[in-house]
Amino acid sequence: MFCTAEQIYEMLIDNRITESVGNIEFNFLNVSVNIQEKSAIGDLFQEWFAKWLVTSGIEYRTPSNTQEFPDFLLDSTSNTKNLLEVKTFDYSRSANFDLANFEAYCHSIKTKAYRLDADYLIFAYLLIDGQFKVEKIWLKKIWQITGNSDKYSIKCQVKKEIIYNIRPISWYSQRAKFKSFNNRLEFVEALHQTLMQYSKTQIS
Amino acid sequence: MFCTAEQIYEMLIDNRITESVGNIEFNFLNVSVNIQEKSAIGDLFQEWFAKWLVTSGIEYRTPSNTQEFPDFLLDSTSNTKNLLEVKTFDYSRSANFDLANFEAYCHSIKTKAYRLDADYLIFAYLLIDGQFKVEKIWLKKIWQITGNSDKYSIKCQVKKEIIYNIRPISWYSQRAKFKSFNNRLEFVEALHQTLMQYSKTQIS
Repeated sequence: MFCTAEQIYEMLIDNRITESVGNIEFNFLNVSVNIQEKSAIGDLFQEWFAKWLVTSGIEYRTPSNTQEFPDFLLDSTSNTKNLLEVKTFDYSRSANFDLANFEAYCHSIKTKAYRLDADYLIFAYLLIDGQFKVEKIWLKKIWQITGNSDKYSIKCQVKKEIIYNIRPISWYSQRAKFKSFNNRLEFVEALHQTLMQYSKTQIS
Repeated sequence: MFCTAEQIYEMLIDNRITESVGNIEFNFLNVSVNIQEKSAIGDLFQEWFAKWLVTSGIEYRTPSNTQEFPDFLLDSTSNTKNLLEVKTFDYSRSANFDLANFEAYCHSIKTKAYRLDADYLIFAYLLIDGQFKVEKIWLKKIWQITGNSDKYSIKCQVKKEIIYNIRPISWYSQRAKFKSFNNRLEFVEALHQTLMQYSKTQIS
């Protein structure tokens, strides 16, 4: 069956995902080790999630180039609705995953405005002593997890004055200095303002 | 017990490492998946190897900063001999792991010439349909896996004219255009020549 992101979210909650404990085991040459290394969790969890969908009887499609947006096409035929992105982050640190390349995203929404309505299923995990837990799970739109920053109208990953990726703010934190946008329009306006603020894309 | 790299290599061969099949399993929420993603294998295998050493009764120490050289200190007390680096690469592609940051390595051997004698235990793996195999294993010195390149006297990772890391040549390939150095001196001379060829470190 095909499902919406909302239905998948509800099913994960019903499966008590935040109460489960798992692990990642490397078995070889009669030695088994529970992996402690976090750098790969995002990729590994994505593989687990795809298998969980199949096991749960949920059908999906993926883009022909798996590096492309989105991670999962949840509609049986449409490539423009029910688009799902899956994100993970270490809950003992801040959410700092890449949402999209800044310039490519700005460019793409001129012709692919439907990207603004994609769903983001976000898992905050802990990996302690080889035990994997999902502490929190959220289903969000991109404008609900992005916001202003000190430097630009939208928070981005910036290195040596170059803007690379759009990054989330701490939408889940009461103490966060910057709050998320209130709607899709505010998000798009912030993208536009950032293009204007950014020396590389400023109209000179 | 403490062992030399040579003894560890022999033990792995005796354990028939190249005939074993393993896997990396993500178990969570009653769903188990055999990982297919290769990007993390290097880190994950390093964790497996450390556990294999312990299980095999082989003692070792690690540098206080685990990001530092070497991966394993095999001597009970010395920090300058029996130094072991562990490298992995996907045998369906070429060996392209980083051996060391070029400039940092050149700088370090001025005072830490013992680095030239470190052992490199190299595992060429295949990961096919979630099955992990080690196809080949080598124990080498750095000068036995490095060599000339078209651009510089020593093969390096170069991006936009900047030299980043020392990279191996295809020491295991009969068809390789460039062969490995014949001894430690040739390797050091190639480092020196590269410093001279490289615009950033040229004497102007």
